[in-house]
Amino acid sequence: MFLIKLGGSIITDKGVKYTFKKEIMDRLSSEIKKADKEIILVHGAGSFGHILAKKHSLNQGYKDDTQIQGFSDTHAMVQQLNSLVLTSLHDHDIAAVSIPPHAVLKLDDHRPSAVDYTIFKEYLSKGFTPVTFGDVVLDKTLGFSICSGDLLMHMLAEYFNPEKVLFVLDEDGIYTSNPKTDKNAEFIEKTTILELENLKTSANDHADVTKGMQGKIETIKNISRLGVDAVLLNGNVNNRLYDTLVGKKTKNTLVYGEKR
Amino acid sequence: MFLIKLGGSIITDKGVKYTFKKEIMDRLSSEIKKADKEIILVHGAGSFGHILAKKHSLNQGYKDDTQIQGFSDTHAMVQQLNSLVLTSLHDHDIAAVSIPPHAVLKLDDHRPSAVDYTIFKEYLSKGFTPVTFGDVVLDKTLGFSICSGDLLMHMLAEYFNPEKVLFVLDEDGIYTSNPKTDKNAEFIEKTTILELENLKTSANDHADVTKGMQGKIETIKNISRLGVDAVLLNGNVNNRLYDTLVGKKTKNTLVYGEKR
Repeated sequence: MFLIKLGGSIITDKGVKYTFKKEIMDRLSSEIKKADKEIILVHGAGSFGHILAKKHSLNQGYKDDTQIQGFSDTHAMVQQLNSLVLTSLHDHDIAAVSIPPHAVLKLDDHRPSAVDYTIFKEYLSKGFTPVTFGDVVLDKTLGFSICSGDLLMHMLAEYFNPEKVLFVLDEDGIYTSNPKTDKNAEFIEKTTILELENLKTSANDHADVTKGMQGKIETIKNISRLGVDAVLLNGNVNNRLYDTLVGKKTKNTLVYGEKR
Repeated sequence: MFLIKLGGSIITDKGVKYTFKKEIMDRLSSEIKKADKEIILVHGAGSFGHILAKKHSLNQGYKDDTQIQGFSDTHAMVQQLNSLVLTSLHDHDIAAVSIPPHAVLKLDDHRPSAVDYTIFKEYLSKGFTPVTFGDVVLDKTLGFSICSGDLLMHMLAEYFNPEKVLFVLDEDGIYTSNPKTDKNAEFIEKTTILELENLKTSANDHADVTKGMQGKIETIKNISRLGVDAVLLNGNVNNRLYDTLVGKKTKNTLVYGEKR
């Protein structure tokens, strides 16, 4: 089984509210269909979630009643993005079923608490493709908080031990430094957590790895420690996702699981 | 707490695919907001669900793989209707949160099996309005089946023991016979299950009670046996829902809970 995350920045324009990149999503759907693998899909909330969530400080937990409506509104917008993703998947004959975090799991001070994975398992076993996404959720300590797509990736990787975990991004993968500002930046095809650790230290010193990638490295470190290989790839380029899924050589970054 | 069902025929045009009655929904949202009660809302799938579900025989359970895509498509369309309902509720400052049956419960040969009601309870306790709806669901015996809005009403009434259960319909309530064909039809303001049983027998003999109402009476009989009062009212008429919620006299049919 493959666990795939479609990053919020690849399926939405993160800077502009409620902008869905339908053409890219449709191409990714067709690549997933063509690869014909067992898949659990996670998508980010992108501009359907982050802007509202930030406005209402939802990730800091309950502070006042105005946030209650903010929570509802954010949930509704993320559900609308999820419907757009579902429509694209269904248009490509993928039997996707949505599993919304706000209804099936709870966090406790941002950490996974009550999670029922059997619903994912049962849909998978019947031939469906479960789809989940970054969402607002109840939080035992904070009242509510945010369950990010990256946290879902870690949780699902831990439970399902997938063959590979794929992050579909709007970048090719990991470079030694930021390729947009550093001509000497080298693309990393294969790496380990230890190497990434060293890279991160130097990145912080020089602030030269793209910001999105720095956060991503934390998630990948956690997944790698589970012994699961992670691949980062560019969803803007034709067939990178398909080639990665079927094991064909293409441009991407493989981070080895640590138990290997 | 009030448990309200917005019938599929009041929020959609049941005969025409994917037709949402936005004006009626908006007025019902404003009446719910004005009444300011603790509420769990259930809505039917109407023309967003029934047509597809019937096409793929989803309620008869798994028969062949073509149904898998049918299940997904039906789920996606019902989620779109739910998003329209959520938008209307949010536009009227109701902090609605969707709890989709296909993700949180399972049936066993059409009967409730694994159901986690705590998620409804927790959202309620934080000041949210949980919203659930007729949906496709997993079924232990059948593979999958349909969880109707009426079944949800029965399940939630049993667990929450609400003050009243309200059915918002496109009819005034229950008549002694079909008012559209029988000039002697009398409107029933208050009744008991025993009276309804007798009515039903005669209705079957003469086929003169509206068809929708006959099915409804089964659901109401089950809810009445829990000792919960049920009210049937016409959502097409201004303030019938509001008046019923705040206890003002209006045209509707009250069916007494049997434990009274």
